[in-house]
Amino acid sequence: MSFQLLCRSSQSAARRGELATLHGTVQTPVFMPVGTQATVKGVLPEQLVELGAEIILANTYHLFLRPGHRRIERLGGLHRFMHWQRPILTDSGGFQIYSLRELATITEEGATFKSHLDGSSQFLGPEEAVAVQEALGSDIMMVLDTCIPYPATRAEARQATELSNRWAARCRKAQRPTGQLLFGIVQGGMYPDLRRMAAEELLAIGFDGYAIGGLSVGEPRAQMYDLAEHSASLLPEDQPRYLMGVGTPEDLVEGVWRGIDMFDCVMPTRNARNGMLFTSFGRIVIKNARYADDERPVDPACSCYTCRHYSRAYLRHLYMAREILAPVLNTVHNLHYFVDLMRRVRQAIEQDRLAAFRRAFYEQRQPETENDG
Amino acid sequence: MSFQLLCRSSQSAARRGELATLHGTVQTPVFMPVGTQATVKGVLPEQLVELGAEIILANTYHLFLRPGHRRIERLGGLHRFMHWQRPILTDSGGFQIYSLRELATITEEGATFKSHLDGSSQFLGPEEAVAVQEALGSDIMMVLDTCIPYPATRAEARQATELSNRWAARCRKAQRPTGQLLFGIVQGGMYPDLRRMAAEELLAIGFDGYAIGGLSVGEPRAQMYDLAEHSASLLPEDQPRYLMGVGTPEDLVEGVWRGIDMFDCVMPTRNARNGMLFTSFGRIVIKNARYADDERPVDPACSCYTCRHYSRAYLRHLYMAREILAPVLNTVHNLHYFVDLMRRVRQAIEQDRLAAFRRAFYEQRQPETENDG
Repeated sequence: MSFQLLCRSSQSAARRGELATLHGTVQTPVFMPVGTQATVKGVLPEQLVELGAEIILANTYHLFLRPGHRRIERLGGLHRFMHWQRPILTDSGGFQIYSLRELATITEEGATFKSHLDGSSQFLGPEEAVAVQEALGSDIMMVLDTCIPYPATRAEARQATELSNRWAARCRKAQRPTGQLLFGIVQGGMYPDLRRMAAEELLAIGFDGYAIGGLSVGEPRAQMYDLAEHSASLLPEDQPRYLMGVGTPEDLVEGVWRGIDMFDCVMPTRNARNGMLFTSFGRIVIKNARYADDERPVDPACSCYTCRHYSRAYLRHLYMAREILAPVLNTVHNLHYFVDLMRRVRQAIEQDRLAAFRRAFYEQRQPETENDG
Repeated sequence: MSFQLLCRSSQSAARRGELATLHGTVQTPVFMPVGTQATVKGVLPEQLVELGAEIILANTYHLFLRPGHRRIERLGGLHRFMHWQRPILTDSGGFQIYSLRELATITEEGATFKSHLDGSSQFLGPEEAVAVQEALGSDIMMVLDTCIPYPATRAEARQATELSNRWAARCRKAQRPTGQLLFGIVQGGMYPDLRRMAAEELLAIGFDGYAIGGLSVGEPRAQMYDLAEHSASLLPEDQPRYLMGVGTPEDLVEGVWRGIDMFDCVMPTRNARNGMLFTSFGRIVIKNARYADDERPVDPACSCYTCRHYSRAYLRHLYMAREILAPVLNTVHNLHYFVDLMRRVRQAIEQDRLAAFRRAFYEQRQPETENDG
């Protein structure tokens, strides 16, 4: 078994585990920084290690198109290509293809789509998605899935979920014995019974872990939490659970509380580039004039490289002057916040005080007027 | 004396020295990376230290306008603001104001100009230029000068040079006893006798070092070398000589050969952002398709962070994908090349083999067709 459950929260569905992969062991619950194009935007691998990242995510769709998975394979695989020796999870490309909308056609066989780079016609089916991820050499591969619009009728959701499950079976069959892990993805849209059907079918096929897909697509937050909790409850205790594309710091705490082990989201990296910084007391928008003379670090409670060495005034200056170090330093801070939040969450689970941790987490947040909302 | 001459080349006018400043001693000859807006674009201070930079340059004009020198002073000075504890040289803003052309008016009193940021009317005279640099707390300040168009008549060049010298005297007089060094700037355009006049007048005032300004403005390279050599020969042996805004690796070697101790240029940083990389065998343009599958480092002879860990194929991918790490990794490489070239030049002077070094430097360069020219 690649996953080992170390302990459970008595106060919630939270779990503390570790996941063994070809490139090392990951402590869970974990947040995975997103490195779409074989780089976490603006951050060097050594900086990722320093801020505590144990695993990152890369995007199959993007690397398939540029620079090409065969090229990366010839150059020694994704880890060597991007100088990152810790684990990598690759998504399957399903979500990106879905996002192309009218530029993509989904059939039983797979997805035909036009490249967003040059308009060329491309095909990715379940077998191809696995072959691409095997060429990249990621530690955790995801099955190709097809996404469900929000809102969707029950019939639409059922049809898409069934197709995703047939593709999942084909992915499992296509997989070669490389030692890479393959995760299934529970779809089912906003329908709890379809989620149950999806989970049962995927469990019958058998995967190394299970993702919960198709959430955080526009539904109310309470519904997202309910469906994540419901989906997690359908999955085996002794395997990792990954809530895809989620979320805010609050979402991470709530997800862990409901039994999720793995998260990824572009929010810390993307918001950093837009000057929005996460702190223990809420979010701040660094371009705000109030920071022009502020000699304090972004978050006095933070131990990241950025907070150790730079003032809010300097970060504001870099942002206003459109300097490259603005996204660099902001991203280091935001990723540290997310990764460190999960480190503290793990500690709270180990010490079985997650309820108190969660309460303190919310109490620290100041009213929006105080922190730019 | 802040400058100490350690040894001289018997084969050329080259010198090996060290320059003591408030923030430490700089080994000369030296190349100074440009950090216009209180940041060397794309490079962290720790990366600058690792690649061997001993001193950087910052631009008075830019910092005067944004974020403002008084703000930087309140925040503890430029070093603390930008987290750089080694020496900083600030230019005086003269060249940037000159570059504004019709947006600037030069009178005996000083320069009135419109901000390139918001069009606001601003004034900078010799006393103000010194006050700004004192507020910034740089280690080496430059006198405010007025530049000479190229080409210029003898009368134009003479008039501008005389004004620059009057401003230089006012700068020296305005200087407070902060321990910061103040350098004069030898103008004179393309007229050797005006250069002599400028140097003699500046020497009579007396400065901590002397820059050679107004070169590399469009004149033939041979003329630039001749005028740099001529100007250097007019300056005292026991004080540092700084050739402003120059230049290519070849210019650095030729400048040292003619007795120059200090250089700055945006070329390594700006070209890095455009994907042009300097190597021991010439320049390469990383976006060239020939590098798509090239697993070699940029320069197999280079020991920089970028060359130790990344292939040309990866750097090309980052460049094509417009990733932030493209300018970051390219800048680290180019600055290392410039800084390391000067380290090797210093060693060659110490061992009195600069002629052989210079010959080998040129022999290593391959024909343009081989290296993208």
